[in-house]
Amino acid sequence: MSEFTLFTPLDETKVFRDPIHGYIHVNNALIYALICTPTFQRLRRIKQLGATYTVYSTAEHSRFSHSLGVYEIARRVVHENKYVAQSLTEEEKIYVQIAALLHDIGHGPFSHVFESLTHTSHEMMTQNLLVQPSDIHDLLESAQHGLGLTIASLITHKYPKPLCWQLVSSQLDCDRMDYLLRDAYFTGTKYGEFDLERILRTIRVANDTLVVKQSGIYAVENYLMARFHMFWQVYYHVNIRCFESMLVAWNKRVMMVETTDRLVMDYHHLIQNPTDLSSYLMADDATLISLFKILKDHDDPIIRDLSNRLLNRNLFHEIYLHDTTMEALKDQLKDNGYDPTYYLLDDTPMTTATRPYQSKGKQKINIITNDGKIKEITEVSSIMKALADSKTQSEPCHFIPR
Amino acid sequence: MSEFTLFTPLDETKVFRDPIHGYIHVNNALIYALICTPTFQRLRRIKQLGATYTVYSTAEHSRFSHSLGVYEIARRVVHENKYVAQSLTEEEKIYVQIAALLHDIGHGPFSHVFESLTHTSHEMMTQNLLVQPSDIHDLLESAQHGLGLTIASLITHKYPKPLCWQLVSSQLDCDRMDYLLRDAYFTGTKYGEFDLERILRTIRVANDTLVVKQSGIYAVENYLMARFHMFWQVYYHVNIRCFESMLVAWNKRVMMVETTDRLVMDYHHLIQNPTDLSSYLMADDATLISLFKILKDHDDPIIRDLSNRLLNRNLFHEIYLHDTTMEALKDQLKDNGYDPTYYLLDDTPMTTATRPYQSKGKQKINIITNDGKIKEITEVSSIMKALADSKTQSEPCHFIPR
Amino acid sequence: MSEFTLFTPLDETKVFRDPIHGYIHVNNALIYALICTPTFQRLRRIKQLGATYTVYSTAEHSRFSHSLGVYEIARRVVHENKYVAQSLTEEEKIYVQIAALLHDIGHGPFSHVFESLTHTSHEMMTQNLLVQPSDIHDLLESAQHGLGLTIASLITHKYPKPLCWQLVSSQLDCDRMDYLLRDAYFTGTKYGEFDLERILRTIRVANDTLVVKQSGIYAVENYLMARFHMFWQVYYHVNIRCFESMLVAWNKRVMMVETTDRLVMDYHHLIQNPTDLSSYLMADDATLISLFKILKDHDDPIIRDLSNRLLNRNLFHEIYLHDTTMEALKDQLKDNGYDPTYYLLDDTPMTTATRPYQSKGKQKINIITNDGKIKEITEVSSIMKALADSKTQSEPCHFIPR
Amino acid sequence: MSEFTLFTPLDETKVFRDPIHGYIHVNNALIYALICTPTFQRLRRIKQLGATYTVYSTAEHSRFSHSLGVYEIARRVVHENKYVAQSLTEEEKIYVQIAALLHDIGHGPFSHVFESLTHTSHEMMTQNLLVQPSDIHDLLESAQHGLGLTIASLITHKYPKPLCWQLVSSQLDCDRMDYLLRDAYFTGTKYGEFDLERILRTIRVANDTLVVKQSGIYAVENYLMARFHMFWQVYYHVNIRCFESMLVAWNKRVMMVETTDRLVMDYHHLIQNPTDLSSYLMADDATLISLFKILKDHDDPIIRDLSNRLLNRNLFHEIYLHDTTMEALKDQLKDNGYDPTYYLLDDTPMTTATRPYQSKGKQKINIITNDGKIKEITEVSSIMKALADSKTQSEPCHFIPR
Repeated sequence: MSEFTLFTPLDETKVFRDPIHGYIHVNNALIYALICTPTFQRLRRIKQLGATYTVYSTAEHSRFSHSLGVYEIARRVVHENKYVAQSLTEEEKIYVQIAALLHDIGHGPFSHVFESLTHTSHEMMTQNLLVQPSDIHDLLESAQHGLGLTIASLITHKYPKPLCWQLVSSQLDCDRMDYLLRDAYFTGTKYGEFDLERILRTIRVANDTLVVKQSGIYAVENYLMARFHMFWQVYYHVNIRCFESMLVAWNKRVMMVETTDRLVMDYHHLIQNPTDLSSYLMADDATLISLFKILKDHDDPIIRDLSNRLLNRNLFHEIYLHDTTMEALKDQLKDNGYDPTYYLLDDTPMTTATRPYQSKGKQKINIITNDGKIKEITEVSSIMKALADSKTQSEPCHFIPR
Repeated sequence: MSEFTLFTPLDETKVFRDPIHGYIHVNNALIYALICTPTFQRLRRIKQLGATYTVYSTAEHSRFSHSLGVYEIARRVVHENKYVAQSLTEEEKIYVQIAALLHDIGHGPFSHVFESLTHTSHEMMTQNLLVQPSDIHDLLESAQHGLGLTIASLITHKYPKPLCWQLVSSQLDCDRMDYLLRDAYFTGTKYGEFDLERILRTIRVANDTLVVKQSGIYAVENYLMARFHMFWQVYYHVNIRCFESMLVAWNKRVMMVETTDRLVMDYHHLIQNPTDLSSYLMADDATLISLFKILKDHDDPIIRDLSNRLLNRNLFHEIYLHDTTMEALKDQLKDNGYDPTYYLLDDTPMTTATRPYQSKGKQKINIITNDGKIKEITEVSSIMKALADSKTQSEPCHFIPR
Repeated sequence: MSEFTLFTPLDETKVFRDPIHGYIHVNNALIYALICTPTFQRLRRIKQLGATYTVYSTAEHSRFSHSLGVYEIARRVVHENKYVAQSLTEEEKIYVQIAALLHDIGHGPFSHVFESLTHTSHEMMTQNLLVQPSDIHDLLESAQHGLGLTIASLITHKYPKPLCWQLVSSQLDCDRMDYLLRDAYFTGTKYGEFDLERILRTIRVANDTLVVKQSGIYAVENYLMARFHMFWQVYYHVNIRCFESMLVAWNKRVMMVETTDRLVMDYHHLIQNPTDLSSYLMADDATLISLFKILKDHDDPIIRDLSNRLLNRNLFHEIYLHDTTMEALKDQLKDNGYDPTYYLLDDTPMTTATRPYQSKGKQKINIITNDGKIKEITEVSSIMKALADSKTQSEPCHFIPR
Repeated sequence: MSEFTLFTPLDETKVFRDPIHGYIHVNNALIYALICTPTFQRLRRIKQLGATYTVYSTAEHSRFSHSLGVYEIARRVVHENKYVAQSLTEEEKIYVQIAALLHDIGHGPFSHVFESLTHTSHEMMTQNLLVQPSDIHDLLESAQHGLGLTIASLITHKYPKPLCWQLVSSQLDCDRMDYLLRDAYFTGTKYGEFDLERILRTIRVANDTLVVKQSGIYAVENYLMARFHMFWQVYYHVNIRCFESMLVAWNKRVMMVETTDRLVMDYHHLIQNPTDLSSYLMADDATLISLFKILKDHDDPIIRDLSNRLLNRNLFHEIYLHDTTMEALKDQLKDNGYDPTYYLLDDTPMTTATRPYQSKGKQKINIITNDGKIKEITEVSSIMKALADSKTQSEPCHFIPR
């Protein structure tokens, strides 16, 4: 019944032009079919860096092109790195490429911030789309029975051979390698650049896990420093945190209104039932933009004001408690007619997930020394030790209107 | 009453990071205020290249960052090129920068294709926003009485000193110089690259018009070839023309339905009254995306099908009449249950506006030779002559469903 | 007796870092051994662009890195382009790579200008090194009897299958593709950039000759325009022609002196016996630099002056006969104490070899149209026709001291 | 009598094309005259990275283009950074640019390694050229009496206002900023890239010394990491150290031979009298190349062998004492007919000068915090602390023939 198996080739290699990789090459029919599904095409409508474009105005690239990029790095590493190639079965090579391609299909509008609105994670949503009925799931099953579950096991680190999931999701994976280069390119910063070619050349395999040859250590240091600097200069920029805090406040208020407007009702349903896949798959950046536009004329003045601000980038500004007190701030806001519940915003707390590098559990980056010993990178590099131990350098702040 | 005049400086130069120009520098308070208006911020929600991202997936950059880029080139040329600097008054230097910044504010969803849906042009809409009440207009007037009209006169080539409008809109203007570099960067092609620095260095002024020094001729040839190749490889790509033809068919059908859905009613109003600025300013790419999502479940099967296709990039394909006849095509479509009115689409006709270079009227690129003579570029370069005379290389086609 | 055959692999792939290609990959033992010969290492001591560094100061790259780059493109095309791969035997793939690597070993000091001093061509010298006893020749013979002659036949276009030599030396060959990109990179100009990846993807084979698929035509146009602009902006720069004319004058005078100085005697021998390979292989850029330094204190005032000028970049300047006459120039020079024989220099005549593109003999670039017809590129592109027909745009000049 | 003063402008700005800075701009007549001196032109004949091109084959760039680049950064910082501009007198702005341009004129053949052959430093030679009669010195004096001494005082850190010499020579100076970018570009590595524009924007001045604004700390970290990685990946590459050790051994032997050959006699004189400026100024890379070529046929077998090896890149290889003992190595070499004095070579010891960053004396990089406090960078960045404290990661080795 199925059109193709795991290995069916395309008649002709399809290529996608890409500024990071030159071309992205697809010659597997299943992978091409996955790219053509509505669920994957939807990633074109979700910006890779959420609200970052309000600060770095050219950061307008989507999860779609990033996902193709992760796939391309995966495709190269499983074929071009002979150590990886020898350690994987032919089936596993396809698994790794599919998991790389699909790792982000669960993302919602404005990427990460949506997770906090819905109290879900994009990884969980990705899993749902892989194992519950969906265009993606059905296609996977048609090629190999149980494939949805297999791909999900790579994304959840449950696949028995660690190398397979480490290539997709670890401290040194195709995901991060693509997004650092891509985010640097599209923001126009240089912090994210590192030597991808050298890392790909120095990857080795020991006990079915990914390690890096000693001579690759500088390239890995460079990559981790790139992550560190991208985090502080781009990902954690104060104005982006501000936009996200404002979105959280807006969401809180919007969820309280009673409405007969279809778009708003749909939004209520979406936030309250994020695991309803059919409504989730209709959510994208345009969903929020359209709501801002409708609600900027709403009866409720707080909704009206916040919608206007989010639409037109009229941001709050940061305030530090060492300069004032919460009580004074609240009084000041009330004097100006602002309800502190929506106008005195906590900063998004930085989770450990955003640390540039941490060595815990199976997540270490391991180096294989010239004499065959395996050591965690912080053991051999004092700079990476300092990086792993580094404390957050930013004082928490609050956001209020100007 | 006004907060600032034409020349009020900012306390501190504002900079925007940009991959093409490194940084974009703003130290004029009026220009910064213009950037902060909702009308200008709206350009963030309109992709520079419309549907091109369906073919070059990273072509996701907006009119916003392009407009900043055009401004930056204008800022540099009026200050750094001493011939231009000497030929302009201080007021004119500001005019040129403002016109460069605002030249695209009239663009609608998906940029150029929207002009054919509304039978307007973005230049006309830009003018309206400059001379009719709007946030932009009001700000301009507050700085200098009549400024809206002055800026409009640069955009319509009516300002008396040709140099002023030539820098903004001509065969060799800041607009094209930015978009070639930017579109090349964001598509990942190399065709749009040329030597901006050299062109900026070799610009001269003769009789208040822009000319290029003879030694800059190769840089200009390079720039025109870049335009030529970007046109054929990117802007005129067959699949983009297909997407646009499908959008035109979709629009035709959508305009016929009776509806009580607010979004659809708003769309009807927008298309029928494009010069109603308040509704026009709410139109952006998200407007169309949201309609596709709503209408993919509409009662009308044609609307349903086309909305689905546009949302999920399920494109028609091209067919050439040398391989078949119109009658045969129509019969074939009808046999498959397709109404040829919406499923046999004409190709978008190429207008002369898209020709890489034409020497007509005041639009010539003039070279000033070493002995002071002024010659049109096709007189001194046989290759540019061939370029100007080149016929379209593409046979017209039609688009039908696969 | 021989250490290796044509196909012996290295234990581990050797890589050379290269800014143009990322890495250059060598895993054939013969090719690596050829790179290690003194004859090939000598190319490190010969600048790719001769005197160009006196104008573009960073054009200091050598024939060595260029030769590796040509090899790398050849290696990729014979393996990655499936049409080429299918048309060549395994032996021919090695031949093409070796010929690409060795095509420039016959170059002398300051590259092309040395050919006019010795009345030889670098191609002829390359042939001599391939077929007469030399480290290169001996190595080739040890791997396969007659291999020197085979490689020479690729360089002289005598190898029976045209595809083989076309990849090495034709209007669209690995040599030109590398040097345009490399010279653009090292001069810091942008004129030489084109889309190498796309050309490599659109190469096809018809009747054992190289053709390009119709969809690659813009990439080829771009490449030919790159050549055209590099020629006029870099290769044919008036100050480089001036330096070369001064070198010719210096050589004429140096060849007349009687001397007992070993370096000068060696130089006389070299110029008079260029086909004496042992002395030729000791000639490199340092040979001329050392002579300039010794002869700047010579008894003969003309040798002294010209040596000083060449060493310290004290160039003549150009003069056009439309501004004066030869007689007037000569009188003026004599009045200033200059002998016109050495101080009134003809411009280097531009040979047809330096034309950006000419369609003659087997040298055409052929396009294969979508319906399988083969057409020369000037038939399908009016711009390339104009390029092929373009006349020199530079008036001949003379050079005299300031 | 003098042609120009410190401030005489050129009639027209001279520009030099440069891949790192786009164009290098000169409009000061004195600076242009300095560039045209034989002493400065000589830097074209000295490779920036000495023997590095034997490992990174494209590292063929000269001290000449580097020196222009350092000047260009200095020119920009003294004009474009308003804090620096306000802290310097107009004279000091010229001093800084001249010192930046001339800081390397004292370098000898193959750059740093030559210092150990002559037991001099290039800084001392630079000083000599500034304060003793030379074309450079005379030109400086003609523009302003005592200028040679003034420029020397910037290079030796004796000029009273620290900002002036810090821009030229410190832990964060125009020299390092240029060479990191330039060496990265010409080697084709990415390790040396950092965000020059941001550093130039965040430089501030406090108490006449250079400090960096807190928001520039990531850019400085990035720059120091770039230095760190360039050091380990490029500058300290084992094969380059090997080449340099071989050159030291060769020099030792060559200095012992008695000879009547002029080139060799000149070399003896040069090494024994490095402060004889007239002979020093004739020394360049070609001097050594020519000697290798002459001496590869010398009577002495050690000179013959080492000359051959250096000419043709036939390098020794490294050996670690943990694998063997000195005695065993010596015995092995003697058995093979090698004299250990010349064939068992110590590794070049790494001096502290090559450490990526050290905070000592006036050499610190200081950060000015948002509240105006000045702190050394290792106080505010734990990663830079780790970098400053990092121990050499390379075990010392010896070099012997294969």
